[in-house]
Amino acid sequence: MKNILVTNDDGVLAPGLLALVQELRHLGKVTILAPDRNWSGSGHVKTLDRALRMREFHLEDGSQAFASDGAPSDCVALAMLGYFKEKFDLVVSGINVGANLGHEVTYSGTVTAAMEAVIAGVPGVAISLEMLEGYVGTIDFQPAANAARIAVQNVIANGLPADTLLNVNVPFLKAEDINGFRITRQGLRVYHSRLDERIDPRGRPYYWIGGDAPTGVSESGTDVGALAAGYISVTPLQLDLTAYRAISDLNTWNWHSQPFEIPLLTPFVAETKK
Amino acid sequence: MKNILVTNDDGVLAPGLLALVQELRHLGKVTILAPDRNWSGSGHVKTLDRALRMREFHLEDGSQAFASDGAPSDCVALAMLGYFKEKFDLVVSGINVGANLGHEVTYSGTVTAAMEAVIAGVPGVAISLEMLEGYVGTIDFQPAANAARIAVQNVIANGLPADTLLNVNVPFLKAEDINGFRITRQGLRVYHSRLDERIDPRGRPYYWIGGDAPTGVSESGTDVGALAAGYISVTPLQLDLTAYRAISDLNTWNWHSQPFEIPLLTPFVAETKK
Repeated sequence: MKNILVTNDDGVLAPGLLALVQELRHLGKVTILAPDRNWSGSGHVKTLDRALRMREFHLEDGSQAFASDGAPSDCVALAMLGYFKEKFDLVVSGINVGANLGHEVTYSGTVTAAMEAVIAGVPGVAISLEMLEGYVGTIDFQPAANAARIAVQNVIANGLPADTLLNVNVPFLKAEDINGFRITRQGLRVYHSRLDERIDPRGRPYYWIGGDAPTGVSESGTDVGALAAGYISVTPLQLDLTAYRAISDLNTWNWHSQPFEIPLLTPFVAETKK
Repeated sequence: MKNILVTNDDGVLAPGLLALVQELRHLGKVTILAPDRNWSGSGHVKTLDRALRMREFHLEDGSQAFASDGAPSDCVALAMLGYFKEKFDLVVSGINVGANLGHEVTYSGTVTAAMEAVIAGVPGVAISLEMLEGYVGTIDFQPAANAARIAVQNVIANGLPADTLLNVNVPFLKAEDINGFRITRQGLRVYHSRLDERIDPRGRPYYWIGGDAPTGVSESGTDVGALAAGYISVTPLQLDLTAYRAISDLNTWNWHSQPFEIPLLTPFVAETKK
């Protein structure tokens, strides 16, 4: 019986989390610790400058759930550091409303929660459901919940390499229209952000990061391409970001001048603050 | 004359930023846009759910500086999206007080600011100065400022591959004790975090992510190892996190069962909220 921690970045009461929990209960004991509010786009947070508070919730089906006022990655850290006084075999984050593709993986609270698990030595799986821009209506989480179950079954059966997590994205299609799984690489998002300056009622400017939703380059073999072709993408991600191919080039650059042959301009000294 | 944007995650008034600005003015025109407060450990944030405010500051040497109430990556986004109505050739983030090594690169506001530049198609350099645990006293930013200047000169002369940033870390040593530069890969941090439960004056628990500061595996060839040996580390980082070596293995896993042969348990449907 596996001990599974479930978290998300949409907040503990988000329906995508409950759909995931209900599905994963077939694979093991599920413990829920998620943020008490939405943290979408929060990035990989480590809250060190304030203490965290915990609250207990009951989800719609009566499941006991815990929430912290920290980020998704803080929730994972709390569990990994022993809040529940038990060890976890796996951390699963989601089901996020909205895909996490391409460059979004470092912004994503869903994905960075899985990163936090991997840093603590526990396999992590992130699961996100594509949303169509401007869609309003019912969301069927069942295809994504089933995809999560299959991914997690595979991780339990095969393990994951150290320092690696799975980023699973499910297309916004009816179950019968999904073509299956594709193992993919991280693709490219194309951002259409625009700065939107407005004036408040007191005459002062404020700025929205606005513009249209990102699109993507639907290249074959990528997460973006798989979703566009009706497949569930499974992208293994690693925490080693080294651009190995750049290393030999950088070694030819002019680093050999001792840095301190350059004349000191304004010797710059400051006091540390404790 | 290059057009350089400088930001940081310690806040616009941090002395490390001013030291960097003064040094980079020898290489081009410097514009300053940084957070109005400390965002250490903030991760890669994209603030979409609230508007951002801007303020103008004057630094100790009289330099004009702009600050937003967003994260470091938001500051970069504001500049890339045209807040200054000009294009930048380079974004430099720092000088951070404290190294950003190993897994810290995804947590770090300093490094994720440089990531944001790269996503916008502009070369990014992050520069951090190692701090000794518990050190109190003066901080000499000059070695790190000189290191930043050399790194930026090299980026101007040679360019950076697409999707790549430089993560520069400077050991906490006197200039004459620094051995020079090393091109490195991302090393391993060893975390010693502990959950610290306390009780507030009203009898309710709260939780600090506490414990000792992280140490590192001083392996040769890594950023951690270079600093331990008295070198400045220069690690090229990429935004493609794909674990390419895992892909062939994952392709042998059992994905071929159509996901929806698994019986649907609780068909799970929720309303979108706009």
